[in-house]
Amino acid sequence: MEAVAAAGQRRPASTWLLAFYSSLLLNVLLLAHHFLRPFGGVVATGGDSCGLSWALQPAKEAEAGAATECSGHGQVFLDGITGENGRPGCECNRCFGGPDCSVRMANCSANAASGNPLFLEPYWKRNAATGSVMVSAWHRLGYITTDGEYQSVELQRLIRQLHRTVGNAAVDDKHLVFGTGSIQLVNALVHALSSPDAASPPARVVATAPYYASYRTQTRMFDGREYGWGGTTTAWANASSNATHGFIELVASPNNPDTLMQERVLRGSAAIVDRAYYWPHFTHIPAPADDDIMLFTASKLSGNAGSRFGWALIRDENVAERANDYVQESTMGASRDSQLRMLVVIKAILANLHGKEDIFAFGHDVMSTRWRRLNAVVSRSRRISLQKIPPQYCTYFKRTRAPSPAYAWIKCEREEDQDCHEVLLKAKVITRSGVGSEASSRYTRASLLKTDDDFDMLLEMITDLVNDEKYSTTAGSSPMSVNTQRK
Amino acid sequence: MEAVAAAGQRRPASTWLLAFYSSLLLNVLLLAHHFLRPFGGVVATGGDSCGLSWALQPAKEAEAGAATECSGHGQVFLDGITGENGRPGCECNRCFGGPDCSVRMANCSANAASGNPLFLEPYWKRNAATGSVMVSAWHRLGYITTDGEYQSVELQRLIRQLHRTVGNAAVDDKHLVFGTGSIQLVNALVHALSSPDAASPPARVVATAPYYASYRTQTRMFDGREYGWGGTTTAWANASSNATHGFIELVASPNNPDTLMQERVLRGSAAIVDRAYYWPHFTHIPAPADDDIMLFTASKLSGNAGSRFGWALIRDENVAERANDYVQESTMGASRDSQLRMLVVIKAILANLHGKEDIFAFGHDVMSTRWRRLNAVVSRSRRISLQKIPPQYCTYFKRTRAPSPAYAWIKCEREEDQDCHEVLLKAKVITRSGVGSEASSRYTRASLLKTDDDFDMLLEMITDLVNDEKYSTTAGSSPMSVNTQRK
Repeated sequence: MEAVAAAGQRRPASTWLLAFYSSLLLNVLLLAHHFLRPFGGVVATGGDSCGLSWALQPAKEAEAGAATECSGHGQVFLDGITGENGRPGCECNRCFGGPDCSVRMANCSANAASGNPLFLEPYWKRNAATGSVMVSAWHRLGYITTDGEYQSVELQRLIRQLHRTVGNAAVDDKHLVFGTGSIQLVNALVHALSSPDAASPPARVVATAPYYASYRTQTRMFDGREYGWGGTTTAWANASSNATHGFIELVASPNNPDTLMQERVLRGSAAIVDRAYYWPHFTHIPAPADDDIMLFTASKLSGNAGSRFGWALIRDENVAERANDYVQESTMGASRDSQLRMLVVIKAILANLHGKEDIFAFGHDVMSTRWRRLNAVVSRSRRISLQKIPPQYCTYFKRTRAPSPAYAWIKCEREEDQDCHEVLLKAKVITRSGVGSEASSRYTRASLLKTDDDFDMLLEMITDLVNDEKYSTTAGSSPMSVNTQRK
Repeated sequence: MEAVAAAGQRRPASTWLLAFYSSLLLNVLLLAHHFLRPFGGVVATGGDSCGLSWALQPAKEAEAGAATECSGHGQVFLDGITGENGRPGCECNRCFGGPDCSVRMANCSANAASGNPLFLEPYWKRNAATGSVMVSAWHRLGYITTDGEYQSVELQRLIRQLHRTVGNAAVDDKHLVFGTGSIQLVNALVHALSSPDAASPPARVVATAPYYASYRTQTRMFDGREYGWGGTTTAWANASSNATHGFIELVASPNNPDTLMQERVLRGSAAIVDRAYYWPHFTHIPAPADDDIMLFTASKLSGNAGSRFGWALIRDENVAERANDYVQESTMGASRDSQLRMLVVIKAILANLHGKEDIFAFGHDVMSTRWRRLNAVVSRSRRISLQKIPPQYCTYFKRTRAPSPAYAWIKCEREEDQDCHEVLLKAKVITRSGVGSEASSRYTRASLLKTDDDFDMLLEMITDLVNDEKYSTTAGSSPMSVNTQRK
């Protein structure tokens, strides 16, 4: 203090006071700036706007909804039903309830029927910043996108880049046609491959059992003059009629429901190859698929089933043109909003390939773990069995990968278990009976694609079923064949 | 300064110095806080995050794109083709070019062919904060929305509320079915109204000329066993076959292309009434429409043609069920992304009804001004004429409103002008010939729905055409009939 005082005496007080008052003035200005700005801001932009104007409000609304936890057993969606507070509430996963989804419901059966690809929901929550998109109020109001097309030119480029990078499809000599889900493209291509000539007999649309039931139900619904449902390939395989009739063969590879690789059966038929599941999270990729006509869907690539977006890779230009005409006539193309979302999603996927957040590594990890756990339980059973899938080398992962099928194709082995769907229903597991796929009722499909809650429930019920075997009345009844699928 | 100095002498210097250094310290801290915080922030959240986390990046990307002006003659879209800088560039309106769309192209013809509803683009730029939506990366990945439906329950509620508030449709006794644009719902309902019974003859799908050409082209493309295109109603109007055959009559009211109110012609036919243009920005609303089957589309309500979203209001439950089955089989419902966007858009519309930003007031203002300006020019012509629309009382605006049709239905009056589409093409105006609507080639449709640039170009070319009349070689050639439409 002496030193300071001494220093003080060396200069005239007026100088000190001038400096002092200047400093005080600066204090006042800085404090005013610091405290008043936000209040001024409130009026202007609802608080600190971080350089955002119109996008701030929708961004905050989206995060406000997402902030609600729902106990990890549900979601809040912007388009959910609004409660009394005017905000959408939690939508709980199956078997969970209460305003925050914390209540586990009693006697709730597992639902493994649908192929809802919700196993990727956690991935997109982890990658929210890159996978989310702000759709401006004036985004693509019109019918056309760049260059007067219904299809985003940039999205086409990214889809081709994705196939090249993943190595699951040869794209260079193919035309690209978008659809409202790959299911629209199935009929678009059936139409494109049928002869418009009224004189020629209608083409027969066929598939090999077990097949995806919608192939039949959709074809039957449209039932045009140019084509009709022709049943399973076995009926025609060795018929001489092969040559004389036009066949359109629907092939899913990997197949839905049994997840096995499938080949075309009828020689000389036009084949539409559904490659929905030909991605590294569901199957090994031995080589790029190079079929004349291939179908892919956002649903099984990124989990965006709700976006209703699929695409076809088509070698022949005329077929591509007719398929495109079909999509334009029936829906005037696929939603531009879905196209924008998929553009952002595929950009995010590409940016993370072979990195820490590789979607295929994440997906394969989840799906192979589920398959391993399910097998561990079912392998103890003589009553039910699963399809057998060997580990195989994958060109994408550059290693032999553990199997990770989208579905369990469950067979009931006991003589008396004629209806496997019913057997599982009694065990409180809802599945999709093989009958719809023209397979034996001894088979039924259980989806492994859904939420962790759904899978945990499924595993719990299957475990109970298997554990009950030794106590069950029919125990010891010799199974018609033990795990024939494993042979 | 004396007074200050005097004041200085009254206290010991040490006190002053303490206050002085405190003040300096405070300044240092305040300045440090002000300047250092942002740099710290950069590391953490990429700058001032205004309480946003994952939504900040997509919000900033959207605004960065929207910030580019494109000289008022173009747009930057997030899914536009990326340039060397990795960002999408300007997409210029027709007849404009250059990196910033500032160059007006020479000898560029006006394109008035399509019904692209871009006249609402400025409205949504003005209402960006309420009309934009942040789509989270995990939004509605699955097939189903609330309550296991493909259709957003909340969007259904808002659509019903909108019809009630606008008073253009009776919704209380109707079922609501969403489609991928109303065009998908046309065939969904043709299918729903046809008899699945193979024994009964196929239903005849008919319309009154001039009609929307897609009614014919789409029906012809599907050409199912249950129904076929039956041509225009005039062929059947007084035929006794009326009773013996099943007719499905497609009625557009207001009609496309001639914008006049249309009634069903065939007694006892099932009618699908397309109400796409039955909104106050295109027509007066005398009373709520109450047809058994009504179609509406986002395209003509809010300008969201690219969203491919439409809905049907259906009285009969079985018909609604069959139409819904069709949409599920063919596309598994309408895109959930489009449903979310429309939910936000309709919320924004509802919030502004009868207010400063009423979308119908804005739309009617733009469209009635365009119609008035076009009429002012065409009224000077003896070569071309327009459909006549009287001002009429509108229950929504609660006043008599000036006409504001979506299309100009142009007739060429001169004997030698057999092909009106060609006449206008020579005048550098691209229109849609009446022939496609089974009207005389003396008629052609010019869209008034597009951008201001498009309309200005159209008006410019039409003005030249009209001004040329007195000089044209055929001047004075007596017109076959003067403005017959006006009679």
